[in-house]
Amino acid sequence: MIPRYTPPDMARLFSAEEKYRTWLEVELAACEAMEEAGLVPEGTSASLRPLAERLDPARIETIEKECHHDVIAFLTHLEELGGSTARWLHRGMTSSDVVDTALALTLRRAACALIERLDQVIGLLATQVAAHRRTPMMGRTHGMHAEPTTFGFVLGSHLAEFLRARERMLLAREEISYGKISGAVGNHAHLDPEIEARALGRLGLRPEPIATQVVPRDRHAFFCTALAFIASAIERFATNLRHLQRSEVFEAAEPFEVGQKGSSAMPHKRNPVMAENLCGLARLVRAALIPAFENIALWHERDISHSAIERTLLPDAVTALAFMLDRLLRILRGMEIYPEQMAHHIEQSQGLWASEALLLALVERGLGRQEAYRIVQRNAMRALAKEGSFRNLVLEDPEIIARISSAEIEKLFDLSHALRHVDQAIDRLLLQAQRPKEGLGTAEN
Amino acid sequence: MIPRYTPPDMARLFSAEEKYRTWLEVELAACEAMEEAGLVPEGTSASLRPLAERLDPARIETIEKECHHDVIAFLTHLEELGGSTARWLHRGMTSSDVVDTALALTLRRAACALIERLDQVIGLLATQVAAHRRTPMMGRTHGMHAEPTTFGFVLGSHLAEFLRARERMLLAREEISYGKISGAVGNHAHLDPEIEARALGRLGLRPEPIATQVVPRDRHAFFCTALAFIASAIERFATNLRHLQRSEVFEAAEPFEVGQKGSSAMPHKRNPVMAENLCGLARLVRAALIPAFENIALWHERDISHSAIERTLLPDAVTALAFMLDRLLRILRGMEIYPEQMAHHIEQSQGLWASEALLLALVERGLGRQEAYRIVQRNAMRALAKEGSFRNLVLEDPEIIARISSAEIEKLFDLSHALRHVDQAIDRLLLQAQRPKEGLGTAEN
Amino acid sequence: MIPRYTPPDMARLFSAEEKYRTWLEVELAACEAMEEAGLVPEGTSASLRPLAERLDPARIETIEKECHHDVIAFLTHLEELGGSTARWLHRGMTSSDVVDTALALTLRRAACALIERLDQVIGLLATQVAAHRRTPMMGRTHGMHAEPTTFGFVLGSHLAEFLRARERMLLAREEISYGKISGAVGNHAHLDPEIEARALGRLGLRPEPIATQVVPRDRHAFFCTALAFIASAIERFATNLRHLQRSEVFEAAEPFEVGQKGSSAMPHKRNPVMAENLCGLARLVRAALIPAFENIALWHERDISHSAIERTLLPDAVTALAFMLDRLLRILRGMEIYPEQMAHHIEQSQGLWASEALLLALVERGLGRQEAYRIVQRNAMRALAKEGSFRNLVLEDPEIIARISSAEIEKLFDLSHALRHVDQAIDRLLLQAQRPKEGLGTAEN
Amino acid sequence: MIPRYTPPDMARLFSAEEKYRTWLEVELAACEAMEEAGLVPEGTSASLRPLAERLDPARIETIEKECHHDVIAFLTHLEELGGSTARWLHRGMTSSDVVDTALALTLRRAACALIERLDQVIGLLATQVAAHRRTPMMGRTHGMHAEPTTFGFVLGSHLAEFLRARERMLLAREEISYGKISGAVGNHAHLDPEIEARALGRLGLRPEPIATQVVPRDRHAFFCTALAFIASAIERFATNLRHLQRSEVFEAAEPFEVGQKGSSAMPHKRNPVMAENLCGLARLVRAALIPAFENIALWHERDISHSAIERTLLPDAVTALAFMLDRLLRILRGMEIYPEQMAHHIEQSQGLWASEALLLALVERGLGRQEAYRIVQRNAMRALAKEGSFRNLVLEDPEIIARISSAEIEKLFDLSHALRHVDQAIDRLLLQAQRPKEGLGTAEN
Repeated sequence: MIPRYTPPDMARLFSAEEKYRTWLEVELAACEAMEEAGLVPEGTSASLRPLAERLDPARIETIEKECHHDVIAFLTHLEELGGSTARWLHRGMTSSDVVDTALALTLRRAACALIERLDQVIGLLATQVAAHRRTPMMGRTHGMHAEPTTFGFVLGSHLAEFLRARERMLLAREEISYGKISGAVGNHAHLDPEIEARALGRLGLRPEPIATQVVPRDRHAFFCTALAFIASAIERFATNLRHLQRSEVFEAAEPFEVGQKGSSAMPHKRNPVMAENLCGLARLVRAALIPAFENIALWHERDISHSAIERTLLPDAVTALAFMLDRLLRILRGMEIYPEQMAHHIEQSQGLWASEALLLALVERGLGRQEAYRIVQRNAMRALAKEGSFRNLVLEDPEIIARISSAEIEKLFDLSHALRHVDQAIDRLLLQAQRPKEGLGTAEN
Repeated sequence: MIPRYTPPDMARLFSAEEKYRTWLEVELAACEAMEEAGLVPEGTSASLRPLAERLDPARIETIEKECHHDVIAFLTHLEELGGSTARWLHRGMTSSDVVDTALALTLRRAACALIERLDQVIGLLATQVAAHRRTPMMGRTHGMHAEPTTFGFVLGSHLAEFLRARERMLLAREEISYGKISGAVGNHAHLDPEIEARALGRLGLRPEPIATQVVPRDRHAFFCTALAFIASAIERFATNLRHLQRSEVFEAAEPFEVGQKGSSAMPHKRNPVMAENLCGLARLVRAALIPAFENIALWHERDISHSAIERTLLPDAVTALAFMLDRLLRILRGMEIYPEQMAHHIEQSQGLWASEALLLALVERGLGRQEAYRIVQRNAMRALAKEGSFRNLVLEDPEIIARISSAEIEKLFDLSHALRHVDQAIDRLLLQAQRPKEGLGTAEN
Repeated sequence: MIPRYTPPDMARLFSAEEKYRTWLEVELAACEAMEEAGLVPEGTSASLRPLAERLDPARIETIEKECHHDVIAFLTHLEELGGSTARWLHRGMTSSDVVDTALALTLRRAACALIERLDQVIGLLATQVAAHRRTPMMGRTHGMHAEPTTFGFVLGSHLAEFLRARERMLLAREEISYGKISGAVGNHAHLDPEIEARALGRLGLRPEPIATQVVPRDRHAFFCTALAFIASAIERFATNLRHLQRSEVFEAAEPFEVGQKGSSAMPHKRNPVMAENLCGLARLVRAALIPAFENIALWHERDISHSAIERTLLPDAVTALAFMLDRLLRILRGMEIYPEQMAHHIEQSQGLWASEALLLALVERGLGRQEAYRIVQRNAMRALAKEGSFRNLVLEDPEIIARISSAEIEKLFDLSHALRHVDQAIDRLLLQAQRPKEGLGTAEN
Repeated sequence: MIPRYTPPDMARLFSAEEKYRTWLEVELAACEAMEEAGLVPEGTSASLRPLAERLDPARIETIEKECHHDVIAFLTHLEELGGSTARWLHRGMTSSDVVDTALALTLRRAACALIERLDQVIGLLATQVAAHRRTPMMGRTHGMHAEPTTFGFVLGSHLAEFLRARERMLLAREEISYGKISGAVGNHAHLDPEIEARALGRLGLRPEPIATQVVPRDRHAFFCTALAFIASAIERFATNLRHLQRSEVFEAAEPFEVGQKGSSAMPHKRNPVMAENLCGLARLVRAALIPAFENIALWHERDISHSAIERTLLPDAVTALAFMLDRLLRILRGMEIYPEQMAHHIEQSQGLWASEALLLALVERGLGRQEAYRIVQRNAMRALAKEGSFRNLVLEDPEIIARISSAEIEKLFDLSHALRHVDQAIDRLLLQAQRPKEGLGTAEN
């Protein structure tokens, strides 16, 4: 991933240094388990642990150029650093025992970092939902004015989506928390399953029930779907912010910072570029989906075709998503909201939004639904053609006033009545958003 | 979906008749709830329920040609059939209240039908895993002989993947079991949330906590991911069966039925065409993924861009997957397995598979890992170049026999030792596959 | 594809009847070539040609149920209908010789049908471009007012995209016009290449230079990319029409027909549902892309994994695209355009659009670019904050009027000057759109 | 893209330094055109050109942190370096005039670098096709032995695919060779089209006929399809090499270098890891497809959602493809081919491959096709069941020998007869592969 889209914690997590440190972490956990089982001299892992600080990615890559195998290069480097003691490492293990177990640790840590950001998004959104629960705005379907709602309710639907996306990421974190130390074809030919269980237990992982040479790749695909759900939740929010910011609407806007310039040509421009960028990055995160699924059907006990995506698009998707969440947080912290403009648009619609209430009132008075529809639509089309405000046209329509009194008609245009149930859903949602977050007490792992 | 790939139950579930029946089911559930609340005259829904048998899709389509709106056409048809009583239907509701709630019912039923098939797959696979737990075969990585395993263990890794795919489909069934009867912009402007809760309760669904005009589309995307996991599990199995059936391997084969012909040109052909077809259909099921995610970011309270995929690719993916499971069941029921051919390939490898055991033994005797590697690899490469069987070459290598006795070397080539841990994983897996299936007691819904 | 999205010509082209007729067409062309070469008794093809009218898809499917092979079932049916003469059919041929050559014919015909529609789109768009070349509207970037343009120019950019999409479809038609009659592994083991050349020549196709058992699938993938380009061109047009129709903009709208109803709940609604549907269908057409590419890497001389997509998603994508073009034509024929609303939005922007002209004038007077930017941006931000019209603010800014006279400033706000170069691009484009369409004289094939 | 998959020329092409140099190249070409038109003082561009060597990406990024706009940061940096003369740059231009024109230059250069590699692939493949045109091997369909072919013919089908992929890349290079210097909404509000034409002419580009603010993104999508075709051609080759290398087949193998180690656990392993890696990277290149198409439907005159993909997945796809071609070249230079193993597999099939010839001979003798099929299939199935060699079984089948003499039967099993037409296709193909390569004389641009 390019620096522009890489938060510092993700740069660290996916660095070469960190990769090799994680590999060593796995080797040492396995070594400790073997020490306990008497397979390896006691004290081996303790004496090798300090090598973590001396790992040299450049040297490992030099060795790999000759042997064409990254794990062997890594082990050779460890022998260079650690001398003959290092020969006890990797005992009975195959490369994937190290690589896949380390990948589980890395993705688990990535998941924690993403969930932490998600929790901040949820917190900020919840605050805005509460603040704007009674801020009326025009609800829009098909881009056209529909019926009124509140900005808090609209944000609530985004908040609910982020809560669902969070649940899926929690699940994905569990699904990815499986390692393996079961050898070349996964059947523990050279190591007792007990060794595996102990080693993985030290790392906070579970053993893959039946591995091949590798941890099965549907786990990683599930992880990618969880990324895509968060990205899509962000995309929906960003898309709608772009709509709200457009010149003719301008009911809300992303922050525009002091010193910011919107266009190299047009100094008057103030564009929702962060929101647009989020939409673009969502395409990137989703692009990892199909390859992640294509990676599942490995040949026999495994081939290595999955590796290229796991070195590139998978960390890129995680990193881009972390960046997206950071950028979303920046938007949420500085988002400008214009309640008066929202009110203005409701006003402008001249009561058209009450057409359904009118329809229902006519049906209640005994008209057939399609007949009532015809009468209301007639007035609505005249209003859209600017022949008068809808409310006035209705109050003059003989077929309507023959059935409903003016007073009753006026009540149909009562905004607060239309919004009377908004609080109930919002209260329930905010409760859900505030409940203590499970599983994050031990966030590091 | 074309008839070739459409099981009868899926043809029914996605038929026009069934769609309109399900819509009516939703309207009637809402109507009943309104009757209880006194909003609609008692007995309305009871008197309208028999219309389910008289719905005429052709007539509805004719009406739609004029009004360009499918739900209005449906309601108009109901007024034609049911007279003025029908005007009580759809009270305070918007089209999506009907369509999305009905879609939830349909997908929930589809999920049940898929899970039922999955359970059969799991049952058949479990039987084969048990039967072949001790049938040795060559494990293969990168398409090359690696170390021995058993056919039951190989099947076990597929079984475990199907069990995971099943869990995800159970989750998806819950995620999709949400309806809405909350009106044009989801905020219950015309109907009390209590009505919604009761109506959906009757249908076995839950109310969407905060809807827009529609149920949020991340639920449907999640459903599509569950389909893709099952399809990919099938693809991995089918891919490996194709490998096992190829002329040079022929360790297993899909059934070839009496009267079947493999090629119009070559009468000797017997091809794994069902397995290949499963791989192709997996591409179709996965093709629904990206559109399902693209459907999430609807504009404001909704636009209708999601509908085209939900009328086409979504039912096609469900249907294709049901067909895939049926076809997989046919394969599993008739799969031919050739243990003697598996044994032959192990024999042919002349002990090369024991190279790791030899490596470990040398390391244990004090050699550095990379040094030991060099010695073993040297003999292996000679064996691959047909200069002798690996076992014999090893028994003649002075650097080896200086360190390990012949008797000890012979033990390294002991197949049953290599497979000693296979049973443990298989026992645990079979236990998991046999535990009572939750949530399916009420399978119909 | 479901009937809703299936134009009649596509229903015919992809019907079972037509498929078998096309297969017979290929068999007869090959038979004729063999007659000329003396391999088959003269008159064979002539005597069998009438069978085209007697093909019975249901019977063929019954036979296939036994032999599990569609081409063998077809040939068996021909033997039933044509007696022993029919045994001369398929001589030296493999199933793919028939299926792939027939698929080429079908896709070539589909391409012709699509290009014919495209030509109508191009014609209608060109008319509108010409009609609105001087209709000023606000150009928008990032959804925000930028600088003025004309509606004709905006449509011109869509027209140009359709012209490019048409070129790609012409190319795709050529790429797909390859058949093969070269036997089981493509090397003419049983038939002279001369036979193939003659047979394909009769069908208006070229022989695949080096086939495997099949025509290589990159040709079909290229065809799918051509579909996707047209779909994306439609999507861009539809997306922008949706923007133009939204309540706050309403500068243009898709047709709303007499009797049409926009919402089952809200009689005032008039929604861009056709345009939204086009966006949704574009996702479907694009969904064929990845499977089409996944189909390329067949195993050895072929496997049959490509077939499932070619029976389903490929015809669906073609059909959906034909429907999209028909729907787009309906929109273009009835599109409502509101020049006064366009003018209104330019007016509303109070000259902000001239900020760049002002910037350039200041630079020309010797200010540094970033310095000038600062001055202009300052006034623009005040205008956006409704502290006055941009024009007035500028006329009062001492830093500006110290450098530019009022008269010169007024000229910067001259709309016709800003649009002076629009005609040149439009003239060139219209010329391109009107040049005689190549290659369609022989459209049938 | 990670260093592992980045060839040095791609590292340079997509470096920050090169990006800013290319931006300056565009600014200077525009400036020169304006000098010629008298809009800018003569000598401006000449005096600024040396700044190319002094551009400081780090400084530009620092400025961008404040103004949030990369092109403005770049221009500000130029003013820092070039003083007041630099204010003549970017006159009447918008950021996309620079960015999109520079992107066209970059992708054009990338295309040249890819085509150069492709030409080497084509050259190496052509050599092998010629060398192995008469090396018999078993043709395989569905992974099963079909009829014989030659290794040269098999490679020829790959060569033909690379030739088609090359044609598409040539087209894509033309499609991407369009720039724009037409201002904020593409209608030349501030600059004469003549300036644009001259500036782009200097850069070897053509002006976009009708731009919006940007060059339309279908051009970039087309470019991505060309990448995907090359990647898929490589994937098909790599997939088949993996099949040929597998333990049971071993008819060809990728090179295994001195010092290479196949597995950290199993010293005997020699795996087709490069070929597998190519299959994985093909998934990455294809992953750019959908985002590239999603980028097309920008809002109005543009939004910036396309940018994220163009900063990440697009250069990654180009880079990965360059790496793939380099790796493929390494494979082609060192590929090991085992004709004797190919011959062995033909031998092993005991004449089964002649079943079609036998079928045709029986039909020629008057048997109905399906009747003849039954007789031949019966013998083939016995041979597959190891009841005897197919040839012997045939020679003893009374229904066959009643119709065909033994001598005639023997001729059906003649390999050279089966391969008699192979040369013709190969000769034609090699001619095509050797014709002078057009368009590469001026490869640099």
